[in-house]
Amino acid sequence: MTKTELLRLIKEKSSFLCVGLDPSLEKLPAHLQKGPDPLFEFNKIIIDHTIDFAVAYKPNLAFYEALGPRGLESLEKTLEYIPGGVFTIADAKRGDIGNTSRLYAKAFFERMDFDAVTVAPYMGEDSVMPFLGFQDKWVILLGLTSNFGSLDFQLMKTENGKCLFETVLEKSQKWGNSDNMMYVVGATKGEKIADVRKIVPGHFLLVPGVGAQGGSLEEVAKYGMNKDCGLLVNSSRSIIYASSDKDFGWAAKQEASKLHNTMEDLLEKYCK
Amino acid sequence: MTKTELLRLIKEKSSFLCVGLDPSLEKLPAHLQKGPDPLFEFNKIIIDHTIDFAVAYKPNLAFYEALGPRGLESLEKTLEYIPGGVFTIADAKRGDIGNTSRLYAKAFFERMDFDAVTVAPYMGEDSVMPFLGFQDKWVILLGLTSNFGSLDFQLMKTENGKCLFETVLEKSQKWGNSDNMMYVVGATKGEKIADVRKIVPGHFLLVPGVGAQGGSLEEVAKYGMNKDCGLLVNSSRSIIYASSDKDFGWAAKQEASKLHNTMEDLLEKYCK
Repeated sequence: MTKTELLRLIKEKSSFLCVGLDPSLEKLPAHLQKGPDPLFEFNKIIIDHTIDFAVAYKPNLAFYEALGPRGLESLEKTLEYIPGGVFTIADAKRGDIGNTSRLYAKAFFERMDFDAVTVAPYMGEDSVMPFLGFQDKWVILLGLTSNFGSLDFQLMKTENGKCLFETVLEKSQKWGNSDNMMYVVGATKGEKIADVRKIVPGHFLLVPGVGAQGGSLEEVAKYGMNKDCGLLVNSSRSIIYASSDKDFGWAAKQEASKLHNTMEDLLEKYCK
Repeated sequence: MTKTELLRLIKEKSSFLCVGLDPSLEKLPAHLQKGPDPLFEFNKIIIDHTIDFAVAYKPNLAFYEALGPRGLESLEKTLEYIPGGVFTIADAKRGDIGNTSRLYAKAFFERMDFDAVTVAPYMGEDSVMPFLGFQDKWVILLGLTSNFGSLDFQLMKTENGKCLFETVLEKSQKWGNSDNMMYVVGATKGEKIADVRKIVPGHFLLVPGVGAQGGSLEEVAKYGMNKDCGLLVNSSRSIIYASSDKDFGWAAKQEASKLHNTMEDLLEKYCK
């Protein structure tokens, strides 16, 4: 998907909601657990009930790999089920030496046709570049994550006085541009999002951590939105586990709708 | 596998060779490519011909994920085929927020029963700790990788005057110990391995990059060996692609045997 198409999508749906498709088998409603493909059946219902409110879906690979080959099948079926024209993100946090990164890129962009994949920056330029060689595909590079471990290295100062994550944002801008690269920036640190915006004014930010991880949507928009919106805000557990009963689809719809209403207001307020 | 068992294995085989099982479908000998499970058939022959010389096998996940669910099946079959008592490493370079890392850990340690998994440190302590909660299992944390992208961040100085990779080594020693944690240190930087040894004298180092990536085995042993050996040196392409013909198993055997001979001498020279 191109940036123009993504912007149109956000405008049409008045939303920048990304739904995290992270189903743990043991947390699924009991009546689904015994079916032939519980993860896919669950995702299907979540997608059906949230598609009016979401511009993107983001399955995290761990939830599928945990089930082995069968889990990957559920993932592939899920991806096929997501209607065309919606942005899809493989949350995989990959990154390896060049020829190996290229294989991961082919897996996510060619075999599975995701629009984007999350990539870890630790191994540097040649571990990221292979993901950038695909038409209309995106790298979403880890910048500042929402977990407390972000204090260990990402927020450590380098000799130039900047934090490591700031250096990652700066250097990586030479590898791609705002048409093929986004950054993961955790929502639990509102004012930090403002620091990020100074370095990457035009890039989209993928913001996890709203809801279960404690971030505030209002803060994210206030500090992170640019004139194009420039945000994809992910919510996973608060939507997909809104109910643990047979009505989980409707409960997910209500949660997604609530977030959508707030997003509509925030787009009106900050993005004109 | 415990450290004691690993040390015994190294002693018994007079080897610290790890064979990287990284088969690309298009590089396999033509007669295998059309079979029902080319990756597994290839790995089987590589394992049969190198088992006398290798103490460890390290499949890189990208090569299997590139083929989707079928690739993961080849991986699982490969892992089952590797004889007991050999150290097995999932080269996956994973790392995510805690509950997600836990799922990856369960996939590699419980579902697949690998002895070790490679983990990327960028997300910090709580992304690594979930991998450390498994009896007799190992985290192999990326320290200094062998690609040129290591210059971008790993070799960047932090405000305390140390390189990022040195800070990763220091901090992460509080998360685990030399009984459940190793470090990836690229072989293309012999003298850097000496710097690493000063920080982690007792830990095993997994050294990729000997052979195709340009590192020298003699240098690695000189700078990196400790009294327990403390090294697993990986070779992938130079062994598995020693021949592209039907005789690839025998060619792999010859290459592995050569490396084994050198390793035997190096163990004699540096590790008493």
